[in-house]
Amino acid sequence: MSESRPDAPRYDIQPIGIVRSPLKRREDAPHQGWLGAPAAWIELEDRFADGLLGLEPGAEVDVVTWFHLSDRDILQVRPSHDPERRLRGVFATRAPVRPNPLGIHRVRVLALEGTRLHVEPLEAVDGTPVVDIKAALTHYDAD
Amino acid sequence: MSESRPDAPRYDIQPIGIVRSPLKRREDAPHQGWLGAPAAWIELEDRFADGLLGLEPGAEVDVVTWFHLSDRDILQVRPSHDPERRLRGVFATRAPVRPNPLGIHRVRVLALEGTRLHVEPLEAVDGTPVVDIKAALTHYDAD
Repeated sequence: MSESRPDAPRYDIQPIGIVRSPLKRREDAPHQGWLGAPAAWIELEDRFADGLLGLEPGAEVDVVTWFHLSDRDILQVRPSHDPERRLRGVFATRAPVRPNPLGIHRVRVLALEGTRLHVEPLEAVDGTPVVDIKAALTHYDAD
Repeated sequence: MSESRPDAPRYDIQPIGIVRSPLKRREDAPHQGWLGAPAAWIELEDRFADGLLGLEPGAEVDVVTWFHLSDRDILQVRPSHDPERRLRGVFATRAPVRPNPLGIHRVRVLALEGTRLHVEPLEAVDGTPVVDIKAALTHYDAD
């Protein structure tokens, strides 16, 4: 398992906003967005408002979250979708436990109100920090 | 633009490995993997070896990188794919400049040798820190 390594480089990651969702508890959250996750709001901090220029309702974006409640020392899990519950490395899954607990969520922007984005579907619970928003990849929009 | 906010929460993100690539300079890197990016190696740190259990050649994964050379204070860019070079917010693009300079790269695993993964295509330059690896989303493998 991972150990403390004071010599390893570290970077600072800072929330740009927060998820506001009817999902209040981790045990209520589906494992992926398409498994019945609700719409949610992303409240971006005002100082990042300039970063939203050109984003329109209907756009698909990848929302990147930081699962701040997740254990960062677990390297293997038994995924619940496997009827035999075989042990797998976290890098072979999308489990929220992992050394850097990043979540990637493909969502559609339903509405924009100032620095608030209404998006769907989002399986992250209320209060989850948001660390990035990226236009979804298309071959027509490569930057 | 963003300013220093000592009161805002911050989290520590730590590289789990590093990109080894024939791409040596940012100006040589295509903007996205499908635009002619080469195969590259990901050298995972040995202490994360357990996290690879079950990952096999042929698998598609999302590699998450940290663009450690990117400016974190730029909130708007003029994407080069737009002939009119209109100004856009970074959250409406996938430009490497952004408050948390995360890159998401969908790649195929070509080979695994211990804690080294050969993947393709990867547009990140040699020396880029890797912060996460996730199984690519499929509806059959939801964890």
